[in-house]
Amino acid sequence: MFGKILIANRGEIAVRIIRACRELGIQTVAVYSEADRDALHTQLADEAICIGPAAPKDSYLNMERILSATIASKAQAIHPGFGFLSENSKFVEMCQQCNVTFIGPSAELIQKMGNKSEAKNTMRKAGVPVVPGTKEPVYDPESALEAAREIGFPVMIKASSGGGGKGMRIAESEAEFLEHFQMAQQESVNAFGDNTMYLERYVRKPRHVEVQIMADKFGNVVHLGERDCSIQRRHQKMIEESPCVALTEELRQKMGQTAVRAAKAVGYENAGTIEFLLDESGEFFFMEMNTRIQVEHPVSELVSGVDLVKEQIQVAAGLPLSVSQSQIELRGHAIECRINAEDPGRNFMPCPGTIEYLHLPGGNGVRMDTAVYNGYHIPPNYDSMIVKVIVHDKDRPSAIRKMQSVLGELVIDGLKTNIDFQYEILSEPDFQAGKITTDFIPEHFGE
Amino acid sequence: MFGKILIANRGEIAVRIIRACRELGIQTVAVYSEADRDALHTQLADEAICIGPAAPKDSYLNMERILSATIASKAQAIHPGFGFLSENSKFVEMCQQCNVTFIGPSAELIQKMGNKSEAKNTMRKAGVPVVPGTKEPVYDPESALEAAREIGFPVMIKASSGGGGKGMRIAESEAEFLEHFQMAQQESVNAFGDNTMYLERYVRKPRHVEVQIMADKFGNVVHLGERDCSIQRRHQKMIEESPCVALTEELRQKMGQTAVRAAKAVGYENAGTIEFLLDESGEFFFMEMNTRIQVEHPVSELVSGVDLVKEQIQVAAGLPLSVSQSQIELRGHAIECRINAEDPGRNFMPCPGTIEYLHLPGGNGVRMDTAVYNGYHIPPNYDSMIVKVIVHDKDRPSAIRKMQSVLGELVIDGLKTNIDFQYEILSEPDFQAGKITTDFIPEHFGE
Repeated sequence: MFGKILIANRGEIAVRIIRACRELGIQTVAVYSEADRDALHTQLADEAICIGPAAPKDSYLNMERILSATIASKAQAIHPGFGFLSENSKFVEMCQQCNVTFIGPSAELIQKMGNKSEAKNTMRKAGVPVVPGTKEPVYDPESALEAAREIGFPVMIKASSGGGGKGMRIAESEAEFLEHFQMAQQESVNAFGDNTMYLERYVRKPRHVEVQIMADKFGNVVHLGERDCSIQRRHQKMIEESPCVALTEELRQKMGQTAVRAAKAVGYENAGTIEFLLDESGEFFFMEMNTRIQVEHPVSELVSGVDLVKEQIQVAAGLPLSVSQSQIELRGHAIECRINAEDPGRNFMPCPGTIEYLHLPGGNGVRMDTAVYNGYHIPPNYDSMIVKVIVHDKDRPSAIRKMQSVLGELVIDGLKTNIDFQYEILSEPDFQAGKITTDFIPEHFGE
Repeated sequence: MFGKILIANRGEIAVRIIRACRELGIQTVAVYSEADRDALHTQLADEAICIGPAAPKDSYLNMERILSATIASKAQAIHPGFGFLSENSKFVEMCQQCNVTFIGPSAELIQKMGNKSEAKNTMRKAGVPVVPGTKEPVYDPESALEAAREIGFPVMIKASSGGGGKGMRIAESEAEFLEHFQMAQQESVNAFGDNTMYLERYVRKPRHVEVQIMADKFGNVVHLGERDCSIQRRHQKMIEESPCVALTEELRQKMGQTAVRAAKAVGYENAGTIEFLLDESGEFFFMEMNTRIQVEHPVSELVSGVDLVKEQIQVAAGLPLSVSQSQIELRGHAIECRINAEDPGRNFMPCPGTIEYLHLPGGNGVRMDTAVYNGYHIPPNYDSMIVKVIVHDKDRPSAIRKMQSVLGELVIDGLKTNIDFQYEILSEPDFQAGKITTDFIPEHFGE
């Protein structure tokens, strides 16, 4: 087992990883930017090294500085958390060259899954259902139209380099296809300098359902159930839950087994998530694979009882998975709400500031993952998510009521947050009835 | 289901009950003393009624005032928590006369179990093993000596009205019996005005192992596994855990079934705990039954996934238990440490004061039950327990390390606490090896 791990991240996920290390008896090294001198992760780690100015490119994204800190502190491994360098294959290669273990999959796998077209082709070959679409990139509008006809409308036009909705258009029919294609391609050229496009069938009112998998170096792969992450605002997840109410036990098994097959097909290692679109008929399609721990991993931990971050570390150290598939039993229902420092009254603009008073409710089935504290000044340079509230109860209605009770008690004074908005979502009859799709927020709140 | 419940308690258990009510959609009424105007339970409840001065007898023990508040606020039920009026049969009778539901067993049952001799006789008749001892009270030293010879030495001499170690002596042999008996009896007369004594075999180096049971009005009784509460300082529990490492699966079943049989024998209803002494050979003896929720109930909640306070409320409202015995599955290992505002350097003297800075760690498998907050002034009038730290992990070594990590992170500035002492206990090799008896603290710390 590692004696010392460097955590190449900040915020609640850095704190989460530090705690896991403490529980495993591993020394921790935090890295922090100048804006994060007073951050909780900086305080909690056994050692803390300043790696540069506030701007991510100068600190949390600066590979050389992070590796220097790793070597200087004699840490044997790096946990990247999520975001920042967690899916950067070049960084993984650099770690290898420095003889430092990257806690995650190989550079090759990250690259393979990071390229969306290649990931889909790989999955298709492994027998994983993929949304019907172009197998090769398209560039020319006329041949794109031909491909669209074959796929069948409505068609989603996507830029290969796209993300966060950029370079993305839906063509409802042949008539409007060419115009949308050209707009999306132009957007991609402007934003990413890349005119590589692809097309796929647009799945109407889908659910975003993802399967958590965990794999070791010995070829063992398990899944830990699914998460329904349909509640999104502008492609940003807001609420995640496990299990997904739309799945029958049969469908759950099928999705889980498909995810395991997908991971095995690519020789996957460490924690990963296979994201699917689930349509109204119960058909599901591979979307993408995230080759890292995810923000919403706690809901899977609460229903499965498996500590995913500890598993990540153990697997990276060469140990086998601590559980087999037959030992994993899912219990109850878990929900996570992401609390952001943002102003719903002003188009959800990030609202950093100082926390003047903080009251984090506790009690039965309540988990708080956060790096904020009383008097903490939230720097404006990073993600606006400040608290993850996660609840666990015997069933979905009980979990919803528990979450409402917790959000009703939670106090974060000194800045604007989306707590009330989260409460409103939970109170919607459609949410309570489990009628949720990725269109839920625009349909109910016009966002 | 009740529309409104009054909580006749304070501190973390009042907060615990308020949260359970919120989750069940029940309105809550807090009662508070003048010293508790700023208490968390006073703030969290939907309504709060001041019932008198700080002294418990004038407020939290004042039955008339609490019932007046119940009637005035139109609450249909009272949850007594633990301590205060929770085992006061007269109060239960008064509730009945006022047509208010007492969330707990009947007055008759509380009385029957409150009298230690009667409770043992009842259990003996139900076939529950009881420490060999006098079946009837003894008063006269000479006939007591005769009874002691029959029981066999060492013999524990106990005052019927005793508690907290008062009126209690151990006679190792016949030679010292008379002197100890007279001392204990005199102590009881002085403290309780009662010379009623009883004797029993003294079980050497026992574990305190208790079984949580839950019963409804339909005769359904389930047990939720056991708790090992051997870590005690002067008869005050400090650390509780579930499961107890000393039990084989067979013994666990046997103790659970015995507890269920005991509860059924007396027609028990609501939450209760059967406390046993477990000796080194695996023999166990009934000690007493607590007819209320207990401080350490969270450890059973974490391993069983059953919310005991919600069950209490539902059962009192006439609903059946939400789980059957076969549905209850115990998972992982849970430990609770009681954090007290006290000074271990000055004989654990209570240390009330103002919390200048509070940092409650969160994260995976960490539960905090507390009613304190940043800036809170702890009044000197009540129990010194201020935080219950409860952790849950896959096995005992992991749970111990998690608890150490949490205690290492927990910050309560402004007053003295027993956090470091708790950490020391957890670090003892004998504790880690599971070698714990009720003599653990005196043997390892000379307390």
